[in-house]
Amino acid sequence: MNFKVVLKTLGIVLICEAFLMLPSLFVACLYRGTDIKAFLYSIAMCLVVGGLLALIKPVNSNIYAKDGFAIVALSWLLVSFFGTMPFYFSKSIPSFIDAFFETVSGFTTTGSSLLPNVEIFPKGILFWRSFTHWVGGMGVLVLTLAVLPTASAKMFHVMKAESPGPSPDKIVPKLGQTAKILYLIYFIMTIFLIVLLCAAGMPLYDACIHAFGTAGTGGFSNMNKSVGAYNNVYVDIILTVAMFMFSINISLYYQLLKGNVKTVFKNDELRFHVGIVITSIVLIAVNIHGKYFDSFLTSLRYSAFQVSSIVSTTGYATTDFNLWPTFSKAILFFLMFLGGCAGSTAGAMKNIRVLLLLKNVKREMVHAIHPRSYNTVRISGKAVDEKILSAVTLFFCAYMIIYVIAVLIVSTDGFDMETTLSSVAATLGNVGPGFGLVGPTGNFSQFSSISKIVFSIIMIIGRLEIFPLLLLFMPSFWKKVNI
Amino acid sequence: MNFKVVLKTLGIVLICEAFLMLPSLFVACLYRGTDIKAFLYSIAMCLVVGGLLALIKPVNSNIYAKDGFAIVALSWLLVSFFGTMPFYFSKSIPSFIDAFFETVSGFTTTGSSLLPNVEIFPKGILFWRSFTHWVGGMGVLVLTLAVLPTASAKMFHVMKAESPGPSPDKIVPKLGQTAKILYLIYFIMTIFLIVLLCAAGMPLYDACIHAFGTAGTGGFSNMNKSVGAYNNVYVDIILTVAMFMFSINISLYYQLLKGNVKTVFKNDELRFHVGIVITSIVLIAVNIHGKYFDSFLTSLRYSAFQVSSIVSTTGYATTDFNLWPTFSKAILFFLMFLGGCAGSTAGAMKNIRVLLLLKNVKREMVHAIHPRSYNTVRISGKAVDEKILSAVTLFFCAYMIIYVIAVLIVSTDGFDMETTLSSVAATLGNVGPGFGLVGPTGNFSQFSSISKIVFSIIMIIGRLEIFPLLLLFMPSFWKKVNI
Repeated sequence: MNFKVVLKTLGIVLICEAFLMLPSLFVACLYRGTDIKAFLYSIAMCLVVGGLLALIKPVNSNIYAKDGFAIVALSWLLVSFFGTMPFYFSKSIPSFIDAFFETVSGFTTTGSSLLPNVEIFPKGILFWRSFTHWVGGMGVLVLTLAVLPTASAKMFHVMKAESPGPSPDKIVPKLGQTAKILYLIYFIMTIFLIVLLCAAGMPLYDACIHAFGTAGTGGFSNMNKSVGAYNNVYVDIILTVAMFMFSINISLYYQLLKGNVKTVFKNDELRFHVGIVITSIVLIAVNIHGKYFDSFLTSLRYSAFQVSSIVSTTGYATTDFNLWPTFSKAILFFLMFLGGCAGSTAGAMKNIRVLLLLKNVKREMVHAIHPRSYNTVRISGKAVDEKILSAVTLFFCAYMIIYVIAVLIVSTDGFDMETTLSSVAATLGNVGPGFGLVGPTGNFSQFSSISKIVFSIIMIIGRLEIFPLLLLFMPSFWKKVNI
Repeated sequence: MNFKVVLKTLGIVLICEAFLMLPSLFVACLYRGTDIKAFLYSIAMCLVVGGLLALIKPVNSNIYAKDGFAIVALSWLLVSFFGTMPFYFSKSIPSFIDAFFETVSGFTTTGSSLLPNVEIFPKGILFWRSFTHWVGGMGVLVLTLAVLPTASAKMFHVMKAESPGPSPDKIVPKLGQTAKILYLIYFIMTIFLIVLLCAAGMPLYDACIHAFGTAGTGGFSNMNKSVGAYNNVYVDIILTVAMFMFSINISLYYQLLKGNVKTVFKNDELRFHVGIVITSIVLIAVNIHGKYFDSFLTSLRYSAFQVSSIVSTTGYATTDFNLWPTFSKAILFFLMFLGGCAGSTAGAMKNIRVLLLLKNVKREMVHAIHPRSYNTVRISGKAVDEKILSAVTLFFCAYMIIYVIAVLIVSTDGFDMETTLSSVAATLGNVGPGFGLVGPTGNFSQFSSISKIVFSIIMIIGRLEIFPLLLLFMPSFWKKVNI
């Protein structure tokens, strides 16, 4: 392990975090809140610790796979740790574990909250809480790459470890350039969303909060009743479409801009995603129609919003879907595991993995019938490497193993099965709300400290797609000698 | 597809089924029950249809993998269909779908029941209901192989498709011989169990019923309160040990008899199984201690019985574990997916698969840290073929995919999430009871016909370990031309 490079990179990331707190400080000043000091202290802390680490001079600057994993996993822990400071210093969330849970939930774009009443919070603090979604969605390190002038091909391992999906594409040869382009598209889409939300009648502050939550597919709101508080059909439609758009591979928008419309429409993952979303919306709309809403259009509005919100792992709610029939809840429950497309800000397993799984299972069945035939699995017309296929099935298994372990620990709190199973699915998949006590009208405050720590860990595991964080717990990871 | 061989084999299997009904007919006569006629009709039907099919003269007698799958899948459907006849003719279960569900639940050794009150049933019918467990546990076709004088190596595909676990071993070179030895051990163990239960104070009839249910890891009882009705500590201990013993690979007993003690103790799957069982027993005993039972020994007694019952996928109950704390229920819920050892009569995924999965995930993590190292996965000291590893991960995925689809269909009935999720886990894993409405004091009668059909299908899918039955639904399976 190249400890010096790892520490130096962590320092740079922390300095970045200090700068990321500036907009929130600005908002705090604007509203003359009680939280100005909290931000000043937090920024100072990040700058001092980050500055000291950044001063380290590494002997060689090589970054191997292992270092990449270490940088990503430690960065996320560190950024979350320092990200809790504004909550802590402003005494908004006095318990450190609670503040850490809320910050991790922010950066990992989960959006699960411990806070029963957010409307009393200072504006700067709420802004920071949602801004972590926006940063965490694309990745703290990808951002660092985008702003660093020195980002080199060596950092590819870092980007690979942080990016969602089995195989990140470099859309342009240079890595820093790729990061810049992606962040630019992300930035423009967010601005566009803020403008639309304002046009629909949302105040600018609320529009920013909800645009951050939507772009990062996070789900924090400044309203206790989430998006349902506005009860505005235009807001619902805009956010339904926006949440869906942010659950799509962002590089596809780059392809669209370059005029490669065909590439986009022939993308198997996108087609699978659209198919799942439309099917789910229709099934749920039919299921809830007549029971909760008289008109089918209204059922469709609520169904579409909720499906888009859960499949994109955002977690906003316009109604208490915890009261919906079991069939609708079962669909939403499984969508919590599915998630959006690779290369988007969405969490959970990602469509592409499930699609590869299905194709792989189908191939195995054909193989059982015709033992001499063994077809290659194809996605968007391209043959998929067998190594990726086995990595994907293994990812699925690892995901379920972690799910089982987390459920067992959380179940010691003694809440009902529905709450227990869905709370873990919602945090591991970075979705946000679940069912039962953690439904849209509930929150995570009733869990024990141990469960809150478990939730925090699995949110990061889910965001980093399992391996980077888990590796930190392996003894051989820390050995100096490589094989 | 060699249709003639397939049909002829089906005929022989049906004739076997006629003979399998004789003990039940004998019991019916003994108790002068109202069910004598029902058995006579059923036996006649099996003999006539089976006899006609057995008359078919195939042009060539080759059995390929595909034919093997077809024989196994169709046999199970056919045997279940004719197995419902006694219930149907005796009017014990007037609805055909209900009778089919109950029979499939019997043959697949699931033990899920639709019947709220079994104590009013004729003795012969209840005997048949439990006897299906005993036959289904080892396999209808393995039995046919054992009694057929002509069983040749050609039938290996059949045995492979019906035996639980990723790789069945032939313990002796000849296939028919292997089947005979296994059935003999199974038979002797069952007799031994009947004697023990009688000695503990159970009437002979009840002892037979519970020995069949235990040996086949089924779980049907002739008491409404299951094993809890006896409230006999000796019965509890005997069954706890017996259920555990029947969840172990039966060929290991053959190794023990041959004196290969070392082979048995070095068996990784067995060690993993014992570890899981002991850990679960202790955790649940601690969890329920003080809440339901004052003495720790009593907690241990109930915990051990329930863990042994669920992990062996038997499904007997001595208390209403549905009322236990969530932690205990979560453990039992996941054990429903785990199941016993390969080569036992237990259902679900089997220990060996989960163990291989865990080892595979661990290897992948080591590989991520040290990209140049890629160890082979070893079980009991032997290297495991990569093909088996990928088949196992894929099996796990296929299992979960079927689970999700079944839950979605069953959830349209609108029962709570706990009932829905556990009822599908309990039937797919051939366990029997679940939680909520299908807990030990409940039953499956409230579900819609569609759900009952889905349960019946997934019980067979679970028993045949997914592929054989699923293949029947693939169009290319029925095409005459092989690639």
